[in-house]
Amino acid sequence: MRASVLSDWLAQRLDRGSAQPVYRQLHKLLQQAILSRELPAGARVPSSRLLAAELGIARNTVTQVYEQLVLEGYVTSATGRGTFVADTSPDEIVGATEIGSMQTRTNGGASGAALPAGKVATNSESAAAAPGAASTSGMEAATQTQRSTARALSARGTRLITSAGVSKRQGGAFMPGVPDVSRFPARVWTRLHNKYWRSLRPDLLTYAPGGGLALLRHVLADYLRTSRSVRCSPEQIIITTGIHQSIDLAVRLLSDPGDTIWTEDPCYWGVRSVLHVSGLNTRPIAVDSEGLNPSAGDFAAPPPRLMLVTPSHQYPLGMVMSLARRRMLLEYARQHQCWIIEDDYDSEFRYGSRPLASLQGLDTAGQVIYVGSFGKTLFPGLRVGYLVAPEALAESFATASAELYREGQLLQQAVLAEFIAEGHFTSHIRKMRALYGQRRQVLLDAVARRYGDALPAMGGDAGLHVVMQLPEGSDDRAVAEAALARNIVVRPLSGYYSSRERANPGLLIGYACVPDEEIAPAFDTLAEAIDTTLPAFV
Amino acid sequence: MRASVLSDWLAQRLDRGSAQPVYRQLHKLLQQAILSRELPAGARVPSSRLLAAELGIARNTVTQVYEQLVLEGYVTSATGRGTFVADTSPDEIVGATEIGSMQTRTNGGASGAALPAGKVATNSESAAAAPGAASTSGMEAATQTQRSTARALSARGTRLITSAGVSKRQGGAFMPGVPDVSRFPARVWTRLHNKYWRSLRPDLLTYAPGGGLALLRHVLADYLRTSRSVRCSPEQIIITTGIHQSIDLAVRLLSDPGDTIWTEDPCYWGVRSVLHVSGLNTRPIAVDSEGLNPSAGDFAAPPPRLMLVTPSHQYPLGMVMSLARRRMLLEYARQHQCWIIEDDYDSEFRYGSRPLASLQGLDTAGQVIYVGSFGKTLFPGLRVGYLVAPEALAESFATASAELYREGQLLQQAVLAEFIAEGHFTSHIRKMRALYGQRRQVLLDAVARRYGDALPAMGGDAGLHVVMQLPEGSDDRAVAEAALARNIVVRPLSGYYSSRERANPGLLIGYACVPDEEIAPAFDTLAEAIDTTLPAFV
Repeated sequence: MRASVLSDWLAQRLDRGSAQPVYRQLHKLLQQAILSRELPAGARVPSSRLLAAELGIARNTVTQVYEQLVLEGYVTSATGRGTFVADTSPDEIVGATEIGSMQTRTNGGASGAALPAGKVATNSESAAAAPGAASTSGMEAATQTQRSTARALSARGTRLITSAGVSKRQGGAFMPGVPDVSRFPARVWTRLHNKYWRSLRPDLLTYAPGGGLALLRHVLADYLRTSRSVRCSPEQIIITTGIHQSIDLAVRLLSDPGDTIWTEDPCYWGVRSVLHVSGLNTRPIAVDSEGLNPSAGDFAAPPPRLMLVTPSHQYPLGMVMSLARRRMLLEYARQHQCWIIEDDYDSEFRYGSRPLASLQGLDTAGQVIYVGSFGKTLFPGLRVGYLVAPEALAESFATASAELYREGQLLQQAVLAEFIAEGHFTSHIRKMRALYGQRRQVLLDAVARRYGDALPAMGGDAGLHVVMQLPEGSDDRAVAEAALARNIVVRPLSGYYSSRERANPGLLIGYACVPDEEIAPAFDTLAEAIDTTLPAFV
Repeated sequence: MRASVLSDWLAQRLDRGSAQPVYRQLHKLLQQAILSRELPAGARVPSSRLLAAELGIARNTVTQVYEQLVLEGYVTSATGRGTFVADTSPDEIVGATEIGSMQTRTNGGASGAALPAGKVATNSESAAAAPGAASTSGMEAATQTQRSTARALSARGTRLITSAGVSKRQGGAFMPGVPDVSRFPARVWTRLHNKYWRSLRPDLLTYAPGGGLALLRHVLADYLRTSRSVRCSPEQIIITTGIHQSIDLAVRLLSDPGDTIWTEDPCYWGVRSVLHVSGLNTRPIAVDSEGLNPSAGDFAAPPPRLMLVTPSHQYPLGMVMSLARRRMLLEYARQHQCWIIEDDYDSEFRYGSRPLASLQGLDTAGQVIYVGSFGKTLFPGLRVGYLVAPEALAESFATASAELYREGQLLQQAVLAEFIAEGHFTSHIRKMRALYGQRRQVLLDAVARRYGDALPAMGGDAGLHVVMQLPEGSDDRAVAEAALARNIVVRPLSGYYSSRERANPGLLIGYACVPDEEIAPAFDTLAEAIDTTLPAFV
């Protein structure tokens, strides 16, 4: 395309009625012409004066576009000699395997000659790699799409996607693990929030030092000492974005790919993904009414590097780990130099008795990493969790957290700290415990009314859900699907097990986010799904 | 300790003047007595009636404490027979290596007998593992502390900590990479924030669906298409907590441990840690004035699985990747099925010309993952970033993000979306670009005034810092330390290189967060540090 041809080509395509400024249109068109080689490398572009005149636009616009194209490397400008299309074609460079031809061309001079078309073996492919090419050749665009679909995820990526348990549903009856966020004291929160924004403290808006805001770590240490019997100083506390990040941090600091971690069987599926993606092998350990119950085979195997347990409220089954098991676990870990991650995700909500003490409080060997979250006690979307590191590792945890995650959100942390310090946190927990306790009772009554002892509900002493056992051999996934078809969300218990062979059928029924009066009707709908799916049982 | 002895022991320790309720004190003392074996397994504890009378406290208090201890497994209660200390000692259980003795004892009955003291070989260790033991034996506590210090981080954890580049300083002259957060339009932000809190939408307070809030993804897609020439639909956008999380996600989905990634040399240290901790081998590729410049050796090596580049504004040196290199990189990636991560962290701030188009916009093979952040344009503590996934992988990225990170913060995302939609975002960028441009000029003038051409400042066409080159062979770390002693933060350029051999000395000088009038005086102080540390040069 010669200079005069270029003017015509541009004139046909410039749309003065368009909302897009002429500058941007001209810029894009020239880029397109160069990338598609309609303007070949080495070609001289018209002077800004000439092009402006032929297109009937301001010369300044053309000058600016040329300057931008120089900066971007599309054209080069040699004073007194004019502006030339740069040679940027990649064909010979990366196609070559001989060392001699591997040097990249620079766009620093106007001397690059156009590549003769005959030499450009992969011409059509290169053209397809240019913006706008898809519009000129539908065939090529289709080929590209196919090719990009064929590009594979990695092995760990594939495993992550195929085993992902995450649901698109985020609430409604009977979504387990979701608290009632509509009762959150929004006015108090907003008042504190506005107070901090009014004073506009730059130190709260920038990156966080490792571990989080000192004030929050301080009030949290007080809370955990008093309410959860956790032995800790504020320096041991690391503020995270939740249980997932807490576990991710501990796993990356304390284990290497190929290491083994004991997990409870069943356990929370989300955590399994976090472990696998960091290269850990999980060894599922059975649980009984006293919690984690390693078998002779488990003890005979090489000791794991890590153990992940939910001693205060086994997830999802709901039992409490007995003192005997706690002491056994601590002693085993001490002898074999394992780390124990204690996931204490919702034990604030215990009905009929006080919350139970943490496992961490029994540990004096500095081997327990305690993790918790405000997701259930306040609201999940807050994304604030914490871990308590062993004293000797507190500094390393803080450094690693800053290095890996570049923390921030200090203003929100300040609001949260004051929310706790002013007593709103414990008072909110108290209110919600009463509310959830009531909903739990409504649900348990509905289950008992409908099924008596035939389908017992267990794990209801604490937390936000109960587990309804289904008859042995029944297909809880089918029941959950039938329920979903009726707009009721329950999770099949079998999905929490490491394998189908070990799985017991059941349903996780979350009652916390369901208004009292909706619980019984929703359960009736669920019962319909159960009865339809398991006719043999009915 | 017999029952009557126990009453005396408790009476001596109960403190009625304490702020701690009697319930809690009694609970703790009994736990302590049991764990330390002052009350041995199998011992019968006094009836609640008797103990209450002897201690002169309400019987109901004792009953409640006993109930809690039963729940926690410290004691067992057999109707009509009394309450007994449970056998929870772990010694024989986990010390044993024969399969026959590995069964754990249950605390389900009152029949457990006390272990004879002579049989308990590891008695002192077990005692040290109980709360309160440290106060009775200083020696044991000291031993415990040593032991826990000796517990090692993993190999990847150790590497992470020893190579961590994170600084405890978060601002001040001349901290690079930190924007001026004091100019953030806090009132607008607070207004939008309050609007969403007032309406209290539960769907904004719970977990997020994979990818983030639809509205934010929508306005962001518009912005990226218009301002960064990114080709994307809202569905391709994944909201993250920043560049670190975006890269973490891409790396875990697209690579496996042991895979190689090309990184620029020098590059941002924080990203190196994220890559290493996921098991990647980094191959540092030299950069020149056109950006990434792979050598013959690099091309001859097996192709990497990933490449990580900063084409719009090389970090930290500041050059723009030329079009020739961009096309070369895209073509090489296409031929060898590599993925390219484009880190576009601050290119909104380009002075003297318009922001340059993204590399992603040139890609039609679906091989570029574009990542960006609001950390520099709004404020770092916001912790909102994004990635643009290739169309074919958008769904996988959304799923993986939800599965790995359990996203939330939707209310903040709603505020941000409206902030952008109402035009505050682009107007804030415009204002800050003018402000930073001015500060940059003040700094460049100060450098030129003091050092002329001897120590050139480069990379100042965009971003929030310039790089001042230091004479070859000089020790930039020593200069940075001398500056820090004068309360001036600069980062030594050599720290960004993969090795000391490849490093060029220089200083990263961040001007964005320094008020205009403080720049020249702060630079004088820095110059003093330079001149003192490099006397040969002066």
